[in-house]
Amino acid sequence: MKDNIAELRKIFGDRILEKKEDLVPYMKDASYFEGNIPLAAVIPKNSEEISKLMKICSREKIQVVMRSGGSALTGSPVPNGDSILISMSAMNRILETHLDDGYIVAEPGLRLDDLNNYLSKLGFFYPPDPASSMAATVGGSISTNAGGLRACTYGTTKEWILGLELVLPSGEIVEVGGRTLKRTKGYDITALMAGNEGTLAIITKAYLKIWPIPEEIGRILAYFKDVEKMGRSISELKGRGIIPYIAEFMDKLSLETIKKARNIDSPEGSNYLLMIDIASTHESIDRMLEDAKKIIEAEGPIVIRITRDKDEMAKMYEARKGLYSSSLGLRDFKDEYIEIGDVVVPPSQLPESLMEIESALKEYNLKAVLFGHIGDGNIHANILVDLNNKDHVERVEKFQMAIAKIALKHGGSVSAEHGIGLEKKELLLEELRERNSMEVLTLMKNIKKAFDPEGIMNRGKIFD
Amino acid sequence: MKDNIAELRKIFGDRILEKKEDLVPYMKDASYFEGNIPLAAVIPKNSEEISKLMKICSREKIQVVMRSGGSALTGSPVPNGDSILISMSAMNRILETHLDDGYIVAEPGLRLDDLNNYLSKLGFFYPPDPASSMAATVGGSISTNAGGLRACTYGTTKEWILGLELVLPSGEIVEVGGRTLKRTKGYDITALMAGNEGTLAIITKAYLKIWPIPEEIGRILAYFKDVEKMGRSISELKGRGIIPYIAEFMDKLSLETIKKARNIDSPEGSNYLLMIDIASTHESIDRMLEDAKKIIEAEGPIVIRITRDKDEMAKMYEARKGLYSSSLGLRDFKDEYIEIGDVVVPPSQLPESLMEIESALKEYNLKAVLFGHIGDGNIHANILVDLNNKDHVERVEKFQMAIAKIALKHGGSVSAEHGIGLEKKELLLEELRERNSMEVLTLMKNIKKAFDPEGIMNRGKIFD
Repeated sequence: MKDNIAELRKIFGDRILEKKEDLVPYMKDASYFEGNIPLAAVIPKNSEEISKLMKICSREKIQVVMRSGGSALTGSPVPNGDSILISMSAMNRILETHLDDGYIVAEPGLRLDDLNNYLSKLGFFYPPDPASSMAATVGGSISTNAGGLRACTYGTTKEWILGLELVLPSGEIVEVGGRTLKRTKGYDITALMAGNEGTLAIITKAYLKIWPIPEEIGRILAYFKDVEKMGRSISELKGRGIIPYIAEFMDKLSLETIKKARNIDSPEGSNYLLMIDIASTHESIDRMLEDAKKIIEAEGPIVIRITRDKDEMAKMYEARKGLYSSSLGLRDFKDEYIEIGDVVVPPSQLPESLMEIESALKEYNLKAVLFGHIGDGNIHANILVDLNNKDHVERVEKFQMAIAKIALKHGGSVSAEHGIGLEKKELLLEELRERNSMEVLTLMKNIKKAFDPEGIMNRGKIFD
Repeated sequence: MKDNIAELRKIFGDRILEKKEDLVPYMKDASYFEGNIPLAAVIPKNSEEISKLMKICSREKIQVVMRSGGSALTGSPVPNGDSILISMSAMNRILETHLDDGYIVAEPGLRLDDLNNYLSKLGFFYPPDPASSMAATVGGSISTNAGGLRACTYGTTKEWILGLELVLPSGEIVEVGGRTLKRTKGYDITALMAGNEGTLAIITKAYLKIWPIPEEIGRILAYFKDVEKMGRSISELKGRGIIPYIAEFMDKLSLETIKKARNIDSPEGSNYLLMIDIASTHESIDRMLEDAKKIIEAEGPIVIRITRDKDEMAKMYEARKGLYSSSLGLRDFKDEYIEIGDVVVPPSQLPESLMEIESALKEYNLKAVLFGHIGDGNIHANILVDLNNKDHVERVEKFQMAIAKIALKHGGSVSAEHGIGLEKKELLLEELRERNSMEVLTLMKNIKKAFDPEGIMNRGKIFD
C-alpha cells in the first residue's frame, strides 16, 4: 500500500492528502453515517489524472469513493472500509456554453448554484434544483439523480444529461451520449449513470441540457386546515392541465419552523401551506394565476392569495429550501440529529399517505417536520433523532420502514430523490419484494459487474 | 423443436401461426432487410403467456424476436436465423388513465396515434411523435427510443417513460421504475430499455407520462435560398430563448415532392423551407409568433408568413410526416427502394453539415430528399436505391458512412431516432472509434449478458 501511495504522490503532487486531520472531513456526508478515514484523498484536476489513478486502483484492487459537494443525505460518499477518496472540488469549471444548441459542458465539481448564477445572466437555467443547490454539484446530482423543487415541470436530473465523459474502473476514458437531444448509440449508458451513486464509473465531464428562463413567475399561497382539501387542489390543477412551475407543501410544524427561523407568519388555524408557482408569459401570467387560484379556492382554503412580489417570493423559497437547517431549531437538546424521510406517491395519493404518515409519527412517538414537492408527490419528513438513544434510533428506523410501506401501498416508491446510499438499502429491498421484482436485484448486481468486475467502486452502496 | 411448438400451441391456442403464408408478413419491417421465416409467430394476450413462452425458450435456447407496428427502419424486428416471433398486436389496450397524476398505463402494442386520439379528447397528449405514428406502437417506440417532430421541446421517448413491466428472458415478470415522476431504485433499468431494440427484455406494460396540450399553436413558414440563412434563423431563435414546439426543414427536392404528392406550392427560388411551430397561451401566441418572425426575417428569407389556419397547418404537417411515402414518387422505376439516413448534429452545425451532405450526394451520384427536425439537428435523407444494382447499393452504403462521418465531425451522432438494428451497426462502431470509446462496446456486451445470458433475445441487433 505504501508503494501505491507513493505512486499516487507522483500523479497528484501536493493534491494528495494523507494526514489524519486533513482526512477527517471526508469521513461523513450530510447524513448521520460515520465512515472510515480514507487511506488518502486525492484532488484531481482532469480526467487523465483520474485515469492514471484508476489504473493503479484496479491493478491493486483498491476501493475508490467519489465526493463532490458532500451534501448527500444517505451516506453515498461515506468511505466504507479502506479506500482512496477522490474529491472533485478542483474540477469545477464550465468548459463550454452553447445557448443556441441548448447545452453547456461542465466538470463534475461545479456547484449547481454557481451554474445557475452564471446561466441566469444569459437568460437560461439548469432546472434540477435540490434544496442543497448551494453545495450540491453537477457530478453528485447526476450520481443521485437529484430532483428538487422544479421537478413537477422539468423532471429530475436524468432528463437534463445529454452525455458524459466517464473514467471506467479500468482507467479507460470514454464518452457516452453526446451533445445532441437525440442520439441512438445502443444501450443508454448515460441514463444508467443517473443514480449510480459512484458505483459504476467516474463522471469527469457532463453535457447538460439548459432551458430558457420563463418570462414570468407568480405565486399562489393557499393555507388549509384539511389535508384532503389541499390534496384535491393539486389534483384538480393537474387534471385540468395546469402544471405548476413548482408546487410545494408544508405542514403545521414546518410553518412554525419558518416562523421561528425567518419570521414568516401563517394565518390562524393553518395546518398546511400549499405554495404553487405558475410560469407563463407577460400577457398570460395574471390570467393563469387567477385560473389556478379559482380552482384552489373551490376546495376551501382558509386564506388564499397571489403574490408577484419578488422579494417575498424569494424569502419563502429560501425558507422552504432551508427547512433542513431550520428544523434543527426544533431540537430539545443539541445532540439531536435530523434524519430525512424521502418517499414518493402519485400526487393524488398524497392526502391519504400524509394522514397515514402522521399516524405513524404518533405510533412511534416521534417529532418530524413534514413537507415536500406535492406536484410530484414527493414527501419529506425531517425526523428528530437522538443518536445516543438506542430506543429512539430504533423507532426512527421503524418509522422509515413504515412510511416506505405507506408509499408502496399508494403506488409510490421508498426513495424519491436522495438516493439509496447506505441508509435505504433495506427499504429498496422492501420495494423490490413488494413489487415481486427481486430479480431486478440480480440484474443490478450483474450490471455492477459489467462495469466494475473487481468491485472497487464505492462498495456496499445501493445494495450489498 | 416439434415438441416445443406443441407446448406453445397449448399456451396460445389459435393465436400461434405456423403456416408459411401466415409467417411471410413477419419476415420484414419497413426497411429493405429480408429476414428469415420464423419457426412460428405467437400473439400473446398478456404477460403471463409471454412468461410461459420465455420459460420454454430459455430452457431450449430458442431465439425470440418481438414485433409491434412493423414500422422500424433499420431491421430491428427482422428475424435473423431460427426464432419465435412475438407479435404484440393483441396487447394494445390503454389500461389506466390518471390525468391528475399525469400518466397512463398502456400495453406495448398500442399505436401512438390511437393513444393520442384518445388523449386529445381529454386535453392531453403523449409528446413522442415519430412520422410513422399511425403504425408505430408504444413498445416499438420505446425499444428504438423514437423521437419525431416534437423532440426539440419534449425530448425523445426515454423522457416519457415512468416505468415498465418486463418479462425477462428467464420468464420472470418484474416491474421497473413506477408511477411517479421521481423515484430512486438503484440502476435505472427503465432507461436502459429505451433503445434496447428487443435485445434485453420484453416490455409488457408501460407507465407513460402525459402532458397538457398547449393552448395555442401557430406556424411560421419561411422559404430560403441559402442554407446558412435558414440555419442562422434557428440558432438565433434558440439562442434568444425561443424553443419551438416543432422546427422542421425541407430541401428543394422535398418541396418538389410535396408539390407533386399534395399540391403544396412553394415560392419561386426556394431551396429550403423552415417550418416553425410556436406553442403559447391565448394571450401570447400572436406576439410570440411576431417575435419569432422578426428574428427569422432578419436573416433574409425569400418569403416568410405566419399561419394560424388549422387546415393548412394540418395539411403541411401530414405532408411532412408523409415524406417517406411521397418520396417513392421520385423513383425512376418501381423496384427502387427508399433507404433513410438519420444523423444528428447540434442544430448550429446543421448548415455546414447539410452542405457537406449535398456534396457527398454529388460525389456518389445519388438522389436523396433531405429534410428533418432542425430544432434538434436531426437530418434525414430519403435515398433512392435500386436494390438489384450492386454498384448503386454500394454507393448508398458509402454515402451512409460519409454522412455518419460528417455528423461525427460536427459533434453529432450517426443515428438519431431510428435505432441501430441491422443497418447501422457499422456506423455505431465508427462512432465509438471516432470518440475513442470502443470500451463502451464491451460494456454493452456485458450488459446484454447481464440480462440475456443465453443470448436468445433478438440476436445480432445493435452489435454482433
